[in-house]
Amino acid sequence: MGYTVAVVGATGAVGTRMIKMLEESTLPIDKVRLLSSSRSAGKVLQYKGQDITVELTTEDAFEGVDIALFSAGGSVSAKFAPYAVKAGAVVVDNTSYFRQNPDVPLVVPEVNAHALDAHNGIIACPNCSTIQMMVALEPVRQQWGLERIIVSTYQAVSGAGQSAINETVRELKEVVNDGINPRDVKAEILPSGGDKKHYPIAFNALPQIDVFTDNDYTYEEMKMTNETKKIMEDDSIAVSATCVRIPVLSAHSESVYIETKEVADIAAVKEAIAAFPGAVLEDDVANQIYPQAVNAVDSRDTFVGRIRKDLDKENGIHMWIVSDNLLKGAAWNSVQIAETLHERGLVRKTDELVFELK
Amino acid sequence: MGYTVAVVGATGAVGTRMIKMLEESTLPIDKVRLLSSSRSAGKVLQYKGQDITVELTTEDAFEGVDIALFSAGGSVSAKFAPYAVKAGAVVVDNTSYFRQNPDVPLVVPEVNAHALDAHNGIIACPNCSTIQMMVALEPVRQQWGLERIIVSTYQAVSGAGQSAINETVRELKEVVNDGINPRDVKAEILPSGGDKKHYPIAFNALPQIDVFTDNDYTYEEMKMTNETKKIMEDDSIAVSATCVRIPVLSAHSESVYIETKEVADIAAVKEAIAAFPGAVLEDDVANQIYPQAVNAVDSRDTFVGRIRKDLDKENGIHMWIVSDNLLKGAAWNSVQIAETLHERGLVRKTDELVFELK
Repeated sequence: MGYTVAVVGATGAVGTRMIKMLEESTLPIDKVRLLSSSRSAGKVLQYKGQDITVELTTEDAFEGVDIALFSAGGSVSAKFAPYAVKAGAVVVDNTSYFRQNPDVPLVVPEVNAHALDAHNGIIACPNCSTIQMMVALEPVRQQWGLERIIVSTYQAVSGAGQSAINETVRELKEVVNDGINPRDVKAEILPSGGDKKHYPIAFNALPQIDVFTDNDYTYEEMKMTNETKKIMEDDSIAVSATCVRIPVLSAHSESVYIETKEVADIAAVKEAIAAFPGAVLEDDVANQIYPQAVNAVDSRDTFVGRIRKDLDKENGIHMWIVSDNLLKGAAWNSVQIAETLHERGLVRKTDELVFELK
Repeated sequence: MGYTVAVVGATGAVGTRMIKMLEESTLPIDKVRLLSSSRSAGKVLQYKGQDITVELTTEDAFEGVDIALFSAGGSVSAKFAPYAVKAGAVVVDNTSYFRQNPDVPLVVPEVNAHALDAHNGIIACPNCSTIQMMVALEPVRQQWGLERIIVSTYQAVSGAGQSAINETVRELKEVVNDGINPRDVKAEILPSGGDKKHYPIAFNALPQIDVFTDNDYTYEEMKMTNETKKIMEDDSIAVSATCVRIPVLSAHSESVYIETKEVADIAAVKEAIAAFPGAVLEDDVANQIYPQAVNAVDSRDTFVGRIRKDLDKENGIHMWIVSDNLLKGAAWNSVQIAETLHERGLVRKTDELVFELK
């Protein structure tokens, strides 16, 4: 007997990739159910060639569901994930809502699968920009320790959803076909659908992803800081991020500087990263080999290159990390968590509901 | 009596901006002469509404020239700049060829105009990515000292010339109009015209600008390191850069992390930057105000924002620096050097030729 798997937010940029990842998954799946808001309910999507009608997400919609993958925004997870748990499902939540909840494991399977053992029905999938950095840095942390991370991101617009993809393509057409000055292009979504002002992304780089917090960092930047500490289970790792949106549709790139506890040999660092599951070393500058966003799209892997010593700090290392933000950064990491739960025998009804029903 | 000013490389992306900057300059100019390679000689360009025929650059072309602005590639400067000096001109060279020559001042006028006093006929204009960083960091260095800089750049394609601009627009059209996968687009110029392999820039981020050096950094990255030390006259400042090309036509953005010698108050840092000539503070995150590439195009200023403390290091500061790479990064800084030479009475024939005639 296989599982019934529900995808909440099935029609979105991440949701459609979740369906694809489930089609290719090793999970024993009996049935896939697709859920969404009233705006998309009734649409018909395909799973393994079968038509599936998208249902409305309600408090009672999770009857019989074993695994529920959520990617419909934090407010949807806040409201419905506890009902899914109450109905007996294990929830893998791709939003930020539960990530810092101490009752919720925050998991990148290659890095901290063991944290799943203590789950209470909800497991959080980290932010896209954090996940790929964890895959690249965990092998370094394991061998040499990590003191600090300074990261500048080059993030794709698909992280802001299908509407941001559409907006980017429309803006680019207006500039390259109609000769409109990029600064005069009308924007309605980016940098953040939840903020007041919107700016063009065509031929631009926007140093704002998500809204700003009180300390002048954005939520996106603070996610990288806080999630790293939780996933690596070490609050002493210093992390400061600058998160930037660039006109790329999919795959995030990251310029990452780290300081290790023990001085590391660069050849050994490359070896450790190459040997780590989910990480692919692309580092041969003599032959101009380094990770590129366009090559990472549709791959589940995280690509790492440009690995080199800082010019001054003995324990400083720079690198360039690229991965498909919709796959390892979201849909694949979520389905991979589900697969890992299955492998560890952790797809089970939670005894006691520790999450509030709203 | 005004000057005769020559522009070498007049038909290029930087050369055409040099002509515009000369049109708007306070320099007393009698005559402008436009020089180029045989490929462009004979073309007719405009200066203040006047037609000027582009002449071939030769060893004898600099007779009667007072100021020669070079931006036609390092090999052209290497060959012809000494002949210009021999003919009595002062050369402002926008290529990298003479930048590390101890006989050549490397100047950002707001930062080290005094270095012009010792010139021997050639003054080098720094690399675009260095210049804007110097304008933003010099006021910080003056008040609190600078220990180290870690910079990740988001550089526009126009830094690689008009052919790179054309290539980028062509690639984008192929993707947004014809539905070609970005990874299948044909590239012939970027990341570096001088290197073997070429990669798409549409919907991509390329962590290579210029070719690689022996230490696995690119020349572009090493320029930021070496030029910073020379301009700030302090070899002890640690600088490590990651230089990345993104699909933006003009204006470079930079994510810069610094450590100061004395701990600095962020409000005071903002004040110091706002008060520095050539720098404009754009930093009000509550109102989503920060520098953006599309807004910096056609401005001579360097825009600085997102200034904030590192989350862990008391003396660590992050900021976001944006400027038009063709203007302050090249054409304007070159013409500004010429204006500063004039103001200081330094536009004069060099007594002894210290540069080799080839």
